[in-house]
Amino acid sequence: MTIGPPTGMRDWLPQDTLRRQQLMEIIGSVYRLYGYLPIDTPAMEDLPVLLGKGGGENEKLLFKILKRGEKLERAQETGDLADYGLRFDLTVPLARFVATHQGKLPKVFRRYHIAPVWRADRPQRGRFREFYQCDIDVVNGASPAYEVEIITATERVLSRLNLGPFRFRLSDKRILPLLLRGFGVAQAQIGPLATVLDKLDKISRDEIRAEILKLLPTGSESFKNVSSFVEEAMDIRTHKAGEPARIVDFEKFWKKISDSALRSEVEKILENLTEIMESVCAVNKNSAVTFDPVLVRGMDYYTGPVYEAVVEGFPSAILGGGRYDDLIGMFAGKKIPAVGCSIGFERVLAIQQERASEQLSALAPRMLLLRDEDNEVQLHAKAEFLRNEGLPIETYLDNDEVGKQLKYAEAAGILWAIKGFDQEASSLTIRYLPTRQDRTVSLAEFKSLLAAP
Amino acid sequence: MTIGPPTGMRDWLPQDTLRRQQLMEIIGSVYRLYGYLPIDTPAMEDLPVLLGKGGGENEKLLFKILKRGEKLERAQETGDLADYGLRFDLTVPLARFVATHQGKLPKVFRRYHIAPVWRADRPQRGRFREFYQCDIDVVNGASPAYEVEIITATERVLSRLNLGPFRFRLSDKRILPLLLRGFGVAQAQIGPLATVLDKLDKISRDEIRAEILKLLPTGSESFKNVSSFVEEAMDIRTHKAGEPARIVDFEKFWKKISDSALRSEVEKILENLTEIMESVCAVNKNSAVTFDPVLVRGMDYYTGPVYEAVVEGFPSAILGGGRYDDLIGMFAGKKIPAVGCSIGFERVLAIQQERASEQLSALAPRMLLLRDEDNEVQLHAKAEFLRNEGLPIETYLDNDEVGKQLKYAEAAGILWAIKGFDQEASSLTIRYLPTRQDRTVSLAEFKSLLAAP
Repeated sequence: MTIGPPTGMRDWLPQDTLRRQQLMEIIGSVYRLYGYLPIDTPAMEDLPVLLGKGGGENEKLLFKILKRGEKLERAQETGDLADYGLRFDLTVPLARFVATHQGKLPKVFRRYHIAPVWRADRPQRGRFREFYQCDIDVVNGASPAYEVEIITATERVLSRLNLGPFRFRLSDKRILPLLLRGFGVAQAQIGPLATVLDKLDKISRDEIRAEILKLLPTGSESFKNVSSFVEEAMDIRTHKAGEPARIVDFEKFWKKISDSALRSEVEKILENLTEIMESVCAVNKNSAVTFDPVLVRGMDYYTGPVYEAVVEGFPSAILGGGRYDDLIGMFAGKKIPAVGCSIGFERVLAIQQERASEQLSALAPRMLLLRDEDNEVQLHAKAEFLRNEGLPIETYLDNDEVGKQLKYAEAAGILWAIKGFDQEASSLTIRYLPTRQDRTVSLAEFKSLLAAP
Repeated sequence: MTIGPPTGMRDWLPQDTLRRQQLMEIIGSVYRLYGYLPIDTPAMEDLPVLLGKGGGENEKLLFKILKRGEKLERAQETGDLADYGLRFDLTVPLARFVATHQGKLPKVFRRYHIAPVWRADRPQRGRFREFYQCDIDVVNGASPAYEVEIITATERVLSRLNLGPFRFRLSDKRILPLLLRGFGVAQAQIGPLATVLDKLDKISRDEIRAEILKLLPTGSESFKNVSSFVEEAMDIRTHKAGEPARIVDFEKFWKKISDSALRSEVEKILENLTEIMESVCAVNKNSAVTFDPVLVRGMDYYTGPVYEAVVEGFPSAILGGGRYDDLIGMFAGKKIPAVGCSIGFERVLAIQQERASEQLSALAPRMLLLRDEDNEVQLHAKAEFLRNEGLPIETYLDNDEVGKQLKYAEAAGILWAIKGFDQEASSLTIRYLPTRQDRTVSLAEFKSLLAAP
């Protein structure tokens, strides 16, 4: 019989725990540069808070906490067996937090929150029932200048994470439906068409074309409009190199809209997007922000600009966000504009695990001080001396032969064995375990060896 | 109606979250110097794992997770409503972790784990239903050299935390009962007497004396022995300054034991303790380790040496630990010796919050770049320039007058307002908000101003 963590949940071994901490610290340090500060909330919330708006989908995913003691006895009759639930995202807790601490928070509240959430999903490969989310939001940031800030900060995070080339796709959730309407697509077809276009990264061009054909009559004006628009949108997605797309590149499409009220509505939204894009590019000359008029972010709650970032070589977005002006105020009883970004923390971690296996030892350089002829106290004292010099020293405290000690070090994945240390001469005999090469170096030389990339 | 976190649980505002992270990092960095690495486990475990040994007390404290879907429907009949539970400590998860990953862990596994646990306790002042624990353990460390290591490392943590003078009390859980038996105390009185002695920090000397009088007949040999022993033990506790107590200081007491088998049992245990104490003091000349023969650590599971640390000015111990050779193997199906230490993370945090209120800003220096005649892009660009210099810059993005911006900064607890920045001249006009003093400095001067303690 094997014993393990609950289905769909994971233990974190040391290297993964260190990597997770390092990732949290990189993300946090960049956002702190922009005045964002971390918060945390309890793992559980009162059940009505979690079921807040409608419940529905969320209720199915909830891990609920069984009532206790007398409360449970009374509940057996009514069937209301649970009083709390584990949070399934960090947005509902943020809305509750904002309502609880209204008086104490600055008018514009910039916060990040990196923490586990729980969903009673069917476990699948790469999908867990306990996983980390990483949310960055500005509460009460109404101006588009906050989109500029959050995009700029997030692009800096992506650069710092060294994930390779990325695109930062920007649109406005209102654009695609308006554009399709302007192209003459019937209201009933707009939703299904958006769903097709959302698959742009996942299915082939031919498949997209076929799906459109199913929805729109060939030869119709709307078919022609949509097709030429979609071809261009697909070009953007598949062109990895070259200039990012600008809004003006798509001007020809909304110029076609004959309904002038509709056209001016589109133009007003695009003006806002243009302002955001131009500012982002002015502030960061290397910005990878690109206009993507078919961007569909799944969430219902977005109310304006939306964005996502895609790393070359990975099919789905590694972060996404946008403006959502109607959600954060739900417990505070008023409208609170907000703009945010959610980094796919687990996905970034997985990419790093894949790509950076050689950097593992850099997370926590490990070295074993062997026990030779020393007695215990001498060994401890030598180790303390080296620790005072900043070296992370593990000691071999059992009474085994050197050969057995070296075997232990190799099995434990330790890089360096310190076979001897002459405190007077400040010289060390070290073995680099991957090559089993011995050398004698001064303490200063050993330190610079460790600091070398 | 106010909305808040569940009863007995807390939100973490930014300053407290930062302080918590900082405390975790300090503790972690010291133990990493000794080769200890972090792990993590899921918040929940299978219910049988948590109820493992006996259940009993633990079961009452458990937050259980309600079954879901069909499982729940079937459970309504049997009454087995829950399948998982939230961990109530980090020791049971460690035992489970060790069983799960047996093959992958180094023979001697040094780990630390800092994470929240949940207990459905009656909420009280300073006592929470979600709180952090911080455990450090060596799994499969049989030799007393591991006690030496863990005490040395932990004393280094205490020094780094700057909590003020502390004592590190050491004993062996077997000593007190043996000693009392040797003094002629009847078996039935040993438990109650130990309970009285455990209150040494909490009640007065006179109260202790009165409690002993209730248990032992005045004038009896055992009363005399116990009394003189307890007087000496109380002297140690109340003497804050001066030399730490050594084992030899108490020699006279076990020399009195007439039963030679009993005496030699005591002496063997004390030999082990002597070795540990002498090594600790040889390795760390400033060690605060002190022999404390009346030390009673509540936990049943200790099997040998036990210890705790007490910070001057605080009545109860801020950390405790010891050897527990019979617990970690419970799921692995074999005996696995272990020695560990649990730091009262929440208590240390509370002490720091009390003592270090002035250092708050050091956790995350905050500065606001005011918007004067700049347009948004200019403001963003200036901010980016300063961030590239490493300064954490919050910008004021709304279109308000400078007076209102300064009010916002003060209300938000920001220390510095940057009223102007001349990029060409690399000079800043800054206001230190607590004194409202303005000055013009170079960028380099501002940086050294911030770095100053």
